[in-house]
Amino acid sequence: MIRILGIDPGSQVTGYGLIDAGRGQAVCVTFGCIRPRGGTLAERLHGIQAALEALVDEHRPQEAAVERVYVHRNVESALKLGQARGAALAAVAGCGLPVHEYTPAQIKQAVTGRGNAAKVQVQHMVKALLGLHRSPAADAADALAMALCHGHLRETLARLPAGTRRGRARGRRR
Amino acid sequence: MIRILGIDPGSQVTGYGLIDAGRGQAVCVTFGCIRPRGGTLAERLHGIQAALEALVDEHRPQEAAVERVYVHRNVESALKLGQARGAALAAVAGCGLPVHEYTPAQIKQAVTGRGNAAKVQVQHMVKALLGLHRSPAADAADALAMALCHGHLRETLARLPAGTRRGRARGRRR
Repeated sequence: MIRILGIDPGSQVTGYGLIDAGRGQAVCVTFGCIRPRGGTLAERLHGIQAALEALVDEHRPQEAAVERVYVHRNVESALKLGQARGAALAAVAGCGLPVHEYTPAQIKQAVTGRGNAAKVQVQHMVKALLGLHRSPAADAADALAMALCHGHLRETLARLPAGTRRGRARGRRR
Repeated sequence: MIRILGIDPGSQVTGYGLIDAGRGQAVCVTFGCIRPRGGTLAERLHGIQAALEALVDEHRPQEAAVERVYVHRNVESALKLGQARGAALAAVAGCGLPVHEYTPAQIKQAVTGRGNAAKVQVQHMVKALLGLHRSPAADAADALAMALCHGHLRETLARLPAGTRRGRARGRRR
């Protein structure tokens, strides 16, 4: 089993989800949302960073997964998302965790079997796959979906012969 | 005198400039560029963060200054700038430094006397004001300009009666 931290960074809310995954199974460790409030922009960004560092310190995940971002509504929201994403990724890399990026289609495909599934279907499948009694908030559900996607794909890729794994390494670079 | 760290974050190059400022004077402490190379996106963002933390640790600045960003060329470059900015601001706030944001016009006005000065004029004035023997790289010159702007405006504002200073506090929030 490997412990995976999924992160869904945002300027208002950063969702997180921790799972243990392996041998075709996945167990939820914890999930939730980071909502830094008050203070300056820099202090709120540090709030995201400090909360993620505390999570890593408490739960000791071995790898992290985030959604790759290509496009966004507009320039202002892209800048805000980028700032939250930068604080989160730098924090997790600073804790020594490798960060794996997956496209939205990869995440939906891994969790629902369909790359174009609706958001609500992803949330429903996250709850079902992990046997959760309550529905996680949307951002936490997305973070759990990223962790599930990474758990699923790393096992699938590990089963491939070494020569056919290049697509994965390429997919992780920018 | 107060030690100020100016930062010009970027996905490729993050400029920095440290000055000691006070009593209408400014002295350059050091300046340069952070260029994280190789590795994943998360590792490069952590490289920006680690380099800034090392700078703060070595030179012990008391306050930091950055340029406020409103618009950008396109969504993709805004996301990339945002990521570098998020890593940088979170790192500096994590070191306990208050981060002051200034508009491009405020920075140009403080350094050249004109809010619409050309980039090359800002660089020329930074070199002249700090008595530098060599011209800093563009990103380092911009970072020094931000530090000079903060040094200038904090002195000007300190001279104002308390009741008229509210614009500054408001200007620092987002």
